[in-house]
Amino acid sequence: MKATIINIGDELLIGQVVNTNASVMSRLLVAAGMEVCGAWVVGDEAAAIDRALRRCLDISDAVLVTGGLGPTKDDITKRVLCDFFDSELYENEEALANVKRLFDARGYELTPVNRRQAWVPRCCTMVNNEVGTAPCMWFDLPEDEDDDWGGKVVVSMPGVPFEMQRLMETEIVPRLRVRFGTDSIINKNLLVQGIGESFLSDLIEPWELALPASIRLAYLPQAGMLKLRLTARGGGSEAPRLRQQIDAAVAALYPIAGQYIVGEDLESLPELVAYMLKRCGKTLATAESCTGGALAQQLTAMAGASDYFKGGVVAYSNEVKERALGVSPDVLAAHGAVSEQTVCQMAEGARQRLGADYAVATTGVAGPGGGTPEKPVGTVWIAVAGGSRTVAKLLKFGDRRAQNIERTCNAVWSELVRFVRETC
Amino acid sequence: MKATIINIGDELLIGQVVNTNASVMSRLLVAAGMEVCGAWVVGDEAAAIDRALRRCLDISDAVLVTGGLGPTKDDITKRVLCDFFDSELYENEEALANVKRLFDARGYELTPVNRRQAWVPRCCTMVNNEVGTAPCMWFDLPEDEDDDWGGKVVVSMPGVPFEMQRLMETEIVPRLRVRFGTDSIINKNLLVQGIGESFLSDLIEPWELALPASIRLAYLPQAGMLKLRLTARGGGSEAPRLRQQIDAAVAALYPIAGQYIVGEDLESLPELVAYMLKRCGKTLATAESCTGGALAQQLTAMAGASDYFKGGVVAYSNEVKERALGVSPDVLAAHGAVSEQTVCQMAEGARQRLGADYAVATTGVAGPGGGTPEKPVGTVWIAVAGGSRTVAKLLKFGDRRAQNIERTCNAVWSELVRFVRETC
Repeated sequence: MKATIINIGDELLIGQVVNTNASVMSRLLVAAGMEVCGAWVVGDEAAAIDRALRRCLDISDAVLVTGGLGPTKDDITKRVLCDFFDSELYENEEALANVKRLFDARGYELTPVNRRQAWVPRCCTMVNNEVGTAPCMWFDLPEDEDDDWGGKVVVSMPGVPFEMQRLMETEIVPRLRVRFGTDSIINKNLLVQGIGESFLSDLIEPWELALPASIRLAYLPQAGMLKLRLTARGGGSEAPRLRQQIDAAVAALYPIAGQYIVGEDLESLPELVAYMLKRCGKTLATAESCTGGALAQQLTAMAGASDYFKGGVVAYSNEVKERALGVSPDVLAAHGAVSEQTVCQMAEGARQRLGADYAVATTGVAGPGGGTPEKPVGTVWIAVAGGSRTVAKLLKFGDRRAQNIERTCNAVWSELVRFVRETC
Repeated sequence: MKATIINIGDELLIGQVVNTNASVMSRLLVAAGMEVCGAWVVGDEAAAIDRALRRCLDISDAVLVTGGLGPTKDDITKRVLCDFFDSELYENEEALANVKRLFDARGYELTPVNRRQAWVPRCCTMVNNEVGTAPCMWFDLPEDEDDDWGGKVVVSMPGVPFEMQRLMETEIVPRLRVRFGTDSIINKNLLVQGIGESFLSDLIEPWELALPASIRLAYLPQAGMLKLRLTARGGGSEAPRLRQQIDAAVAALYPIAGQYIVGEDLESLPELVAYMLKRCGKTLATAESCTGGALAQQLTAMAGASDYFKGGVVAYSNEVKERALGVSPDVLAAHGAVSEQTVCQMAEGARQRLGADYAVATTGVAGPGGGTPEKPVGTVWIAVAGGSRTVAKLLKFGDRRAQNIERTCNAVWSELVRFVRETC
């Protein structure tokens, strides 16, 4: 079963908002064994929405649409769908009851504008949106001799990410499964470190060429590492056979490239860190200057972080480096905040004061301002402390703040993984 | 001038990677006065890429493509472009020199696989990619009686975000400007708090209906606030007139809805916080349990955070709450980590120990595990401390970790904005 995605909204097309909806929707569809064969972003413009609908119906069985359902004048999706299906808007009782319920719960009075939320095309099936006032509409395409869209489906959902996600999980994906049945898709990810994409490709070429036709291989270079993804796809009943094929392929890869494989089915370096610390039963603390909390945030974004993460200090000012981490004022005066001496004291201070087995620290000039001839923007020191040992490393990046922070985090995780592997 | 975007990559279609490239590209194009009329994500599949190219050429002047340029077998963009333009691949000297330069710089030996990076379609103009080995290719569409693509442009860039961004900024956008000339687009954002989208829409309807035809209004509900975006668009020489129109429209809005407008041209709540703290000359510290560093990370993601942000403590364990923030063991024993008493002591401890004018604190059960009947998942306490006053607030969310962290951050920023406005 093939699906396409249309995300509607000027804010997406001008780049004001990153389109996370598309990836959330794709993940849910793929996990349910459906194939996403395209995702389209269009503005709040009738002709563009109409065109996208036609194109998506041509190439897929189900078209999942988000956005443009608000009560304000810039939201036109319902009108476009009405024209597209040659239908008319009417006030749907069920939708009105839902809007009223949500307004009552918040203690707001229902205005005429809000009441418009309950107007939907007469030809659609309503899907209840428990957590929002915008409607969710399911359209079944009739047989028509001018096209081959008969039996296909268009679903229009709100663009608010958590409303969309809840609707997809509880209503839309289950209904699509019933309607279309689904393929089996088995994915396996291998995390690789210490070898470049092209070198790995050379190394494993004979293995890659010998893969069965049902398995597709992808190289996904990511921050600080490379992910190899094996995907096997087949009919709904073929899952066990496909899983066997994947397992056999992975087993055959280890003798060739096993020394570079650092983890299976881990999505990112922070996941690898979490996996290793939990396996060793060790704890971690963070001391961050230039990364400003990003290290702690990446760990605590994952459930279960309290198993291995004690906490951290964001030591943005020198005052906090001294007060909260015990960095010596003499060291700061003699070597500056961005120095090997300071970063080592930060890591050691965090480890001792927060009572962790390991600690990591960062200090640097993230930019775009704050650089000096001696320490230009992009100069970063990182450290890892554990047992009686502290290692520090100097990094030199460019002048982009977000990238410098991201790369510093990746370098810290890579160093920590190496350190833990050696000491645990 | 109209542009479209095609991002190629199976990792995007299965939702493994969020497509940030599209929003970065859109922002750069829009800032240069170009209109983005669609963005398409397709997999590494020849027919899908070919179809997307045709459709994008039908509706736009320039088609900007990313991805699928790696040296491995799953990357097929160059082959598809060759077929599309009826051209052939050859080893380009300039591209080979670039690949060699980058391999030399890293001290790697050039393998046959890497050498493939320098093979490009004969009909393209090479654009040098200073920071990566993948080529950037510019294709001019010839006049042809079968289509009206003559004079249009296709550009193929690497999908690696920083390579793409650098190419867009330094090469592609400037070249597109020269080629097509550009419209004037003036954007103005107003940050609104304290009124719902539909109520605001009712309130300002007469003003909205009186806007000149050149101005488009959009309502952008965002976490914890609403953004009103006015966009004026006209010819390349019309910028001054459009700016006057926007200024007049904004001036006319203040008498109607001024009490809800909290900032102009600010993109987010953290930006509003930064703006207010800098204006008052005050400093902030953070004490985070359930947000795990996200508050600090959001502030320090913005350049210049050291002007007002002293630092923070990520007090994930009780031990760190006691050691680093001075929360009393008795309070933790009597009321638990997720309590009004604890969150107030966290905020006060951070303010005093880190030496800031204001401090914010969070403690809660982010989930999905860790809930109790008394304090279920989604129970969160937040506090703001400043002067001799500390205010705390209980929040109750659902069971989604990422959403609970995000909403807690937004609630903290909203409370802090209110607190600072009252006390500064």
